[in-house]
Amino acid sequence: MNTRTETDSIGAIEVPADAYWGAQTQRSVENFPFGAEERMPIGIVHALALVKQAAARVNRSHGLDAKLAEAIDAAAAEVVAGKLDDQFPLVIWQTGSGTQSNMNANEVIAGRANEVLSGQRGGKTPVHPNDHVNQGQSSNDSFPTAMHVAAARAVADQLLPALATLHASLDGHARDWDDIVKIGRTHLQDATPLTLGQEFSGYAAQVAACIERVEAVRPRLHQLAQGGTAVGTGLNAAPGFAEGVAAELGRLTGLPFVSAPNKFAELAAHDTLVELAGVLTVVAVAFTKIANDIRLLGSGPRCGLGELDLPANEPGSSIMPGKVNPTQCEMLTMVAAQVIGNGQAVTVGGLQGHMELNVFKPLIGANVLRSIALLSIGAESFTERTLAGLKPNRARITELLGRSLMLVTALAPEIGYDNAAKIAKHAHLEGLTLKEAGLALGLIDAETFDRVVRPEAMLGR
Amino acid sequence: MNTRTETDSIGAIEVPADAYWGAQTQRSVENFPFGAEERMPIGIVHALALVKQAAARVNRSHGLDAKLAEAIDAAAAEVVAGKLDDQFPLVIWQTGSGTQSNMNANEVIAGRANEVLSGQRGGKTPVHPNDHVNQGQSSNDSFPTAMHVAAARAVADQLLPALATLHASLDGHARDWDDIVKIGRTHLQDATPLTLGQEFSGYAAQVAACIERVEAVRPRLHQLAQGGTAVGTGLNAAPGFAEGVAAELGRLTGLPFVSAPNKFAELAAHDTLVELAGVLTVVAVAFTKIANDIRLLGSGPRCGLGELDLPANEPGSSIMPGKVNPTQCEMLTMVAAQVIGNGQAVTVGGLQGHMELNVFKPLIGANVLRSIALLSIGAESFTERTLAGLKPNRARITELLGRSLMLVTALAPEIGYDNAAKIAKHAHLEGLTLKEAGLALGLIDAETFDRVVRPEAMLGR
Amino acid sequence: MNTRTETDSIGAIEVPADAYWGAQTQRSVENFPFGAEERMPIGIVHALALVKQAAARVNRSHGLDAKLAEAIDAAAAEVVAGKLDDQFPLVIWQTGSGTQSNMNANEVIAGRANEVLSGQRGGKTPVHPNDHVNQGQSSNDSFPTAMHVAAARAVADQLLPALATLHASLDGHARDWDDIVKIGRTHLQDATPLTLGQEFSGYAAQVAACIERVEAVRPRLHQLAQGGTAVGTGLNAAPGFAEGVAAELGRLTGLPFVSAPNKFAELAAHDTLVELAGVLTVVAVAFTKIANDIRLLGSGPRCGLGELDLPANEPGSSIMPGKVNPTQCEMLTMVAAQVIGNGQAVTVGGLQGHMELNVFKPLIGANVLRSIALLSIGAESFTERTLAGLKPNRARITELLGRSLMLVTALAPEIGYDNAAKIAKHAHLEGLTLKEAGLALGLIDAETFDRVVRPEAMLGR
Amino acid sequence: MNTRTETDSIGAIEVPADAYWGAQTQRSVENFPFGAEERMPIGIVHALALVKQAAARVNRSHGLDAKLAEAIDAAAAEVVAGKLDDQFPLVIWQTGSGTQSNMNANEVIAGRANEVLSGQRGGKTPVHPNDHVNQGQSSNDSFPTAMHVAAARAVADQLLPALATLHASLDGHARDWDDIVKIGRTHLQDATPLTLGQEFSGYAAQVAACIERVEAVRPRLHQLAQGGTAVGTGLNAAPGFAEGVAAELGRLTGLPFVSAPNKFAELAAHDTLVELAGVLTVVAVAFTKIANDIRLLGSGPRCGLGELDLPANEPGSSIMPGKVNPTQCEMLTMVAAQVIGNGQAVTVGGLQGHMELNVFKPLIGANVLRSIALLSIGAESFTERTLAGLKPNRARITELLGRSLMLVTALAPEIGYDNAAKIAKHAHLEGLTLKEAGLALGLIDAETFDRVVRPEAMLGR
Repeated sequence: MNTRTETDSIGAIEVPADAYWGAQTQRSVENFPFGAEERMPIGIVHALALVKQAAARVNRSHGLDAKLAEAIDAAAAEVVAGKLDDQFPLVIWQTGSGTQSNMNANEVIAGRANEVLSGQRGGKTPVHPNDHVNQGQSSNDSFPTAMHVAAARAVADQLLPALATLHASLDGHARDWDDIVKIGRTHLQDATPLTLGQEFSGYAAQVAACIERVEAVRPRLHQLAQGGTAVGTGLNAAPGFAEGVAAELGRLTGLPFVSAPNKFAELAAHDTLVELAGVLTVVAVAFTKIANDIRLLGSGPRCGLGELDLPANEPGSSIMPGKVNPTQCEMLTMVAAQVIGNGQAVTVGGLQGHMELNVFKPLIGANVLRSIALLSIGAESFTERTLAGLKPNRARITELLGRSLMLVTALAPEIGYDNAAKIAKHAHLEGLTLKEAGLALGLIDAETFDRVVRPEAMLGR
Repeated sequence: MNTRTETDSIGAIEVPADAYWGAQTQRSVENFPFGAEERMPIGIVHALALVKQAAARVNRSHGLDAKLAEAIDAAAAEVVAGKLDDQFPLVIWQTGSGTQSNMNANEVIAGRANEVLSGQRGGKTPVHPNDHVNQGQSSNDSFPTAMHVAAARAVADQLLPALATLHASLDGHARDWDDIVKIGRTHLQDATPLTLGQEFSGYAAQVAACIERVEAVRPRLHQLAQGGTAVGTGLNAAPGFAEGVAAELGRLTGLPFVSAPNKFAELAAHDTLVELAGVLTVVAVAFTKIANDIRLLGSGPRCGLGELDLPANEPGSSIMPGKVNPTQCEMLTMVAAQVIGNGQAVTVGGLQGHMELNVFKPLIGANVLRSIALLSIGAESFTERTLAGLKPNRARITELLGRSLMLVTALAPEIGYDNAAKIAKHAHLEGLTLKEAGLALGLIDAETFDRVVRPEAMLGR
Repeated sequence: MNTRTETDSIGAIEVPADAYWGAQTQRSVENFPFGAEERMPIGIVHALALVKQAAARVNRSHGLDAKLAEAIDAAAAEVVAGKLDDQFPLVIWQTGSGTQSNMNANEVIAGRANEVLSGQRGGKTPVHPNDHVNQGQSSNDSFPTAMHVAAARAVADQLLPALATLHASLDGHARDWDDIVKIGRTHLQDATPLTLGQEFSGYAAQVAACIERVEAVRPRLHQLAQGGTAVGTGLNAAPGFAEGVAAELGRLTGLPFVSAPNKFAELAAHDTLVELAGVLTVVAVAFTKIANDIRLLGSGPRCGLGELDLPANEPGSSIMPGKVNPTQCEMLTMVAAQVIGNGQAVTVGGLQGHMELNVFKPLIGANVLRSIALLSIGAESFTERTLAGLKPNRARITELLGRSLMLVTALAPEIGYDNAAKIAKHAHLEGLTLKEAGLALGLIDAETFDRVVRPEAMLGR
Repeated sequence: MNTRTETDSIGAIEVPADAYWGAQTQRSVENFPFGAEERMPIGIVHALALVKQAAARVNRSHGLDAKLAEAIDAAAAEVVAGKLDDQFPLVIWQTGSGTQSNMNANEVIAGRANEVLSGQRGGKTPVHPNDHVNQGQSSNDSFPTAMHVAAARAVADQLLPALATLHASLDGHARDWDDIVKIGRTHLQDATPLTLGQEFSGYAAQVAACIERVEAVRPRLHQLAQGGTAVGTGLNAAPGFAEGVAAELGRLTGLPFVSAPNKFAELAAHDTLVELAGVLTVVAVAFTKIANDIRLLGSGPRCGLGELDLPANEPGSSIMPGKVNPTQCEMLTMVAAQVIGNGQAVTVGGLQGHMELNVFKPLIGANVLRSIALLSIGAESFTERTLAGLKPNRARITELLGRSLMLVTALAPEIGYDNAAKIAKHAHLEGLTLKEAGLALGLIDAETFDRVVRPEAMLGR
């Protein structure tokens, strides 16, 4: 392999000749020998480049040479556009401040800018990774800024649209199936009736509330650490740098970023990302409930509840021919379990900061981004491949409704709870219908029974 | 033991003669033989009684006999006031709908009302536990309503005041100690300086953001399930019952309760309590960071960092005489660990609902209430017994600041990052001051050094 | 309230006149104002007293005055027997070393011994809490020793017997129901048959493996920290003290305690209790699976799977008369969720030790003991109140088996997977039996079908 | 893109012409649109191929045509050797039984065998993916078998060697530094002395116990589900198939695999992998303790504890020149946090099985494998890049030891705990040495002091 020599404060090191990165990236490659599947999420890389781009623009008005600033801006834009993704080989498991990924961005952007300006890839002139690309910044504020920017973009571009898609589908079913009266189930035991539409309205309401919860975190997520530099004081950053970068990031992304009111807290802790991970956990919990219900209602085809027919996306079994399984439900509940676990990892990372710096940043950022991606792709796929093709089995629903003993509940206001209970018990023991049992016990007359015990009148409307 | 006979739909059972409760409570006592330390939190019991009180008032306008309604109202008020706490022997580990605690409330309130009305304790006449006290309700909506009411009261009465107290104390230190310049630490390594006040402003900001987060959940916490009855349809509840009870609970508690927009979701899932548990986890994470820093800064007295002197509340060691330990920090971080664990229990309970009912209600309610109590008492005690008596050790702080190599950062804009690094490295290896090293390497002159390297000028002001 | 004055290294403090405890206990009461429901588990208190009793016996052979040693021994025995439980008012949330509970034990035992020896309750003469009761010990080794002793006793006396009871019941059903052929379900979809006995043999095997797992931890749980004193070196403990106390604790409890090979690790970390909490989590996971299956199989009575009839222990619903719910399943799965959460709390506590001491000891000890109690009582109650009365619904089981399409699997070796799949699909779409579908498609003849597709031949025997 | 047509029970589908896989793999690619970073861990793919290889050998003795069996064996061996890794595009988030990954293995092995036998890549003749490669198997037993095989191999090849390496390094330091007397710290407060070697012996003991714990799980991990087929009965598997495959897998891997005693439990639950995840959590907890201590002891260089010098592997800060950070400690503690989170994901997946099948298999398998890889690589890297170059700072250690007040503990047996406490307190308040304070208070004479208070005599030897 052809190499060139790059240097840092430790000394010289050989770097692949065609790499844009420099010495510090190379050291990290060698010092943290995890596999490619452990790479820093590309969303964080792109967000770091956005930070560099915004910083270059602001630094230009604070004395950074215009030519350098423009070259940095252009090189960073290439990174943001995904053109240099292969230049970011570093893994999540590096220094806990994300310094090495920050330097990877500094070096690649400098290396590309230098190539454009001088024809020579890499190096530190005319654009220096620290003095110019990182001007006015520290990893300690740039990396957490990138975590917030990346998470905010993923929330806006992936999660909220996916939740909206899911909600629309559930809400559509709630409307379409509002006339299908079915047996309710509590404790997994037969209960009083509701409509299938009402059941789905509950799922839709859960998702709507999840959207509210995500929205409730965004104001804090849009607060950026940039400007705190090394310990939160902003040493070496120009006056107004913090606000300038936030505004520029707002322009670049269309999101309402602001400078965080207290930079010490933003470097030393990542409570807002722990909060976001908690909200993602709620989303995972809601998804689990919904997907679980749908697979229960779709259980069968002949020996389960069978109230819903799920679309067959693939053969279900390598040994049982003709089987169709609720695979999208399984995918979604597995994804949910992972998100819950990721949330725990974020919590454990979040609580271990020391003094001016939390050094679990890459762990926290990577888990939040992965969870957003998993939930978003999972929800879209589940909507498209299960909800869209879901069909109520009306015959089965009607059959089960007719059998239920819990319609007796409607009698309680008429004849009292204790008498109503006697009828249900008698019917159960003797295998009778409720009406037969009520008449046999002399606790109700036929006319009253027929007037009161009507599922369609038990829907709370 | 003297007993009397009570009955339910299962049959007759002996109940202690002096108990107000009835058959269903007694069965639960016998069927779930956990110890007294596992009792349902009293906050949920009181909230259930508030629900009964509100329901009696609303039911009165829907046909409930005024005398009975007033008797129920009065008996429930006694429960709310804590006068009948010993009448609630049931444990958390019962039916997952909380039915037995709901019946405990129904039975005790009926039993007390009957005593007042008829001179006979207990029983079902003239006030019937189901037909009158539970009128228009199901455990499936009453219990989750009680969970929200109890949590909302605990948030309002315990958590928010405790967070405000904690915040005020931290904020006071932030102001008072704003002139104390000290060494910063990142990666637990010496970094650039900040003031002790700035450091504490970060803690205050963390707590302020926690208050924001708790406030952000309250609108959803104030939404009540009441009116959904058995499966969410509201069967057997009078029109307007849901809104009436919410309004009455608002009057009784001073909190802005409203009827939840979708009752199916409120019975079948407890996403808002999972969300609240997530926010309590963030509070726990923030508390851990703050308490950890304070014990690190207070480590010593002679072989640690020693920047803070912690008040001595008790002897520290049974074997090492004269030792003083950061026991309030230890209490607070242990409490935080419990809250994180409780949050996980709530998550696991929250994701396992089935169809129309989540049957992990007592688990969820009990953990949320315990976590609020632990965080609130913990924060109050920590504030009073550690923060209030905290003293900066100015001599030690100044001594450490003078030693630091990281003041070199101020030179980077002047002589470049690489040269500044050389000075720090040289000083470290040779045991020199930065100035000595800079002059020895010829990288800086004395005048420039003195002008630039001034800790008090490195505070970002 | 009458008081007397006690002193410690901080100074004098008033103590209730009838209390056996002294100054340090009293300070803790005042410094950690949590409620009675947060008391240190009594199992840890008793274990501390066992430690004191064992230590007194060993110290006697190392110079402790025989009269004092005997008085300590006798007083400690009273604590172990539960006679002085009300003398241990301290809560879990205290100093993280458990020093205050250790001093509570030292003071109460001294206070009681002094009463016996001198007629004067409390105080420090002739028996001194530190110099005599705590002789050769530190909280830092006594408290973790007590955690191991308490957990080991709870494992031996509560958990293992409860698991054995549960296993015996499941295993009995596995044997008794070995002839009941039923439909299997995978992905909640109909699958090939098995017997109800085979299904329960899986549950029994899960519990048997849990017993193995608990047994696998015991050798490490029986290793005791005692003898390490303050930091692990054993300063101030007599030679052989560690081994002597372990042996004496073995005699007192009947459990094979040994002195841990490395005391530094035992004080500074509690990995074995984290491990135990992990094993309790596995037990909780297994319990959840078993209880969930039983409530699914018992769902109905008319609109669910209905293969099992669960005993009715109480009325099921406050609004739906006659309902019977799987309340013991709900209790057990809630308990499991709590145990999982407790395990997380232990993990969070376990990972935060600093240098020579982990200061999350009371948190860790309390959670492990609570989890053992919850699982043990839960398993006993579930066995007695659900498993013992469980009845297979043979008619329903046979009905469902007859309907299933997955019996087609038996045809795959005969006619190939793809042809078998065609038959199942055709039967499903046309509402035919498998045989009808196979003949209609001409893929099988009737004789072969009848020979091959026999559920009772599909059981792998 | 060139394609060819493959079919399954759903119908025909286009597959890339150069792919070995068939219709079911292709459907999964399209139905689960997650990114490449979410691929099923290659360790599971290789283990599935081992299962296929072993099965072919056993099936040959049960009637599988020898030519086909040999072709399957050879093709599977290529997969095991990693030659066809790019033929396994499926992600973790698929059907919860792992059916699609099992079919991916069946199809690729058939497709490769067919290419060898017929010159035609892919397809179902002469080797059929289901009838021949999957003969006697179901995904429901093959996939969990592969999970155990993959985890067992990773434990044997990665985790145990890494733990042994780490242990050896810690143990070496424990021996080498056994003469370096230093101050102990409990509650982060100065305590009695120990040697640096003793401190490291505690870390070594923690790792040794972790090795014991991992070993304790292996007997259960070596039990295989194979032979249970679809629901645990073994339908369609030849007699002796289960034992034959286990034995063959033993030969292929050198690990002592056995057939699990109860197959129902192995398909329906994954308690042993939950147990293993719990043990990995203990390892993570121990790693956190060790890495945390080392970064605390290495804090500084001038304003921290400074007892250890950590090797400088890279520049530490993008803004603070010359800074060296404990990056390997940060990597290791981040990895530990991820492992704890992964363990939680496994727990959540483990508890949600339904009847005959747990459908969180890919989630569980992927997390266990990732955790093993993270811990193993992390431990090796930490050992090589931090422990190997760690240096005690003897001057600093001696300086701190000399300052400590806790040497007073040695006086307690001589003059009593209360008097010793007075000396420590007096010294602290007046800034005296212990000796000065003791003499000033008249509580000790100089000769006794010098005889008793010798750090080197306080090491418990």
